[in-house]
Amino acid sequence: MAASGSRKGIGGRRPGDPDTRGDIIRSAKALFSRGYGDTSLRAVAREAGVDPALIVQFFGSKDGLFLAAMADAMRPAEELPAIIDGPRKGFGTRLASWYFGLWEDDSRRLPIQAMLLSAAAHPAAADLLRTFVTREIADRVAVVSRRKDARLRAEVVGAHLIGTAMVRYVYRIPPLSDTPVSALVKLIGPTIDSYLLPAPRVTASR
Amino acid sequence: MAASGSRKGIGGRRPGDPDTRGDIIRSAKALFSRGYGDTSLRAVAREAGVDPALIVQFFGSKDGLFLAAMADAMRPAEELPAIIDGPRKGFGTRLASWYFGLWEDDSRRLPIQAMLLSAAAHPAAADLLRTFVTREIADRVAVVSRRKDARLRAEVVGAHLIGTAMVRYVYRIPPLSDTPVSALVKLIGPTIDSYLLPAPRVTASR
Repeated sequence: MAASGSRKGIGGRRPGDPDTRGDIIRSAKALFSRGYGDTSLRAVAREAGVDPALIVQFFGSKDGLFLAAMADAMRPAEELPAIIDGPRKGFGTRLASWYFGLWEDDSRRLPIQAMLLSAAAHPAAADLLRTFVTREIADRVAVVSRRKDARLRAEVVGAHLIGTAMVRYVYRIPPLSDTPVSALVKLIGPTIDSYLLPAPRVTASR
Repeated sequence: MAASGSRKGIGGRRPGDPDTRGDIIRSAKALFSRGYGDTSLRAVAREAGVDPALIVQFFGSKDGLFLAAMADAMRPAEELPAIIDGPRKGFGTRLASWYFGLWEDDSRRLPIQAMLLSAAAHPAAADLLRTFVTREIADRVAVVSRRKDARLRAEVVGAHLIGTAMVRYVYRIPPLSDTPVSALVKLIGPTIDSYLLPAPRVTASR
């Protein structure tokens, strides 16, 4: 289950090597997948074949590395803008497709899942998840909504998606766990729209 | 945080004592709140002041005790029928009120939260959660819906509620974590209805 997607770095690699940062992130995702508490910078450095000081130089701390690993697995800065900037119609469907796509891809799912579980067990990891979800996801998604409580609505959408992934991929409760993603997107996409976009009937009567 | 609601049983209590079962359940909830993996029947017996054989007699096994503790914390058999049998209008609001009521009550929240987290970490606990959610909750809630995919829809509702509780009570991400329950119920109740009940406009055109 915990197939590691990491590749051992080659010892003695120079700091300027273009893949050093990528190697550290890959190693961090693999180790964080086994648990936040047990993962040390030293262990990540060993796995990546670099000096621990280099990780501090790149990421500041274990927490900075955790945030970078989460950002690398989810890539909201790279992938959300196209979803958000597209036509309002179909926004929920696009967001749900993107989200379940993350979870269907093992190399992205394992670190994301591990970080959600770590955040449930370790207050320090929960602080990081809170920062990440707020800045990287909820603040972006809230822009779609012109409602007064847009931030709350964006978070309710996020909570819905987190819960659905937990039931499907972690608890594996059927029929949710064996329903095709396309059917889930069709079911949940319009709910996302109804949370964020103005209700059509209200708009029509104004 | 992990305030135990258990009371130590008095040694030498007879098996027929009317509160023995309750004492075992209370002790089980307190110990399971600290983790499924670390909890033994022996430890529960010690905490409740009873013989371990008595727990086996009442609950069959550690798994049976876990299910009984979950049922005691959530009480779906006792509390869901009134919600389900009421008028269709307002069903989602009644379900969401009941659900957030569980989480707002520490003595119910702590064991429920612990069981959700245990199930994410221990496959054996996940099996039990799967059984419990399916039989005790999703099967009941699905009855409300006449839609063909009622079971899937009931589970999507459950996933939405689980995720909302995780973000509010476990990850504590604002604004969801500091929004009054009444506002959340108002926001999420209609979504529950839209998942389970036939869409009003579709009904009108039939």
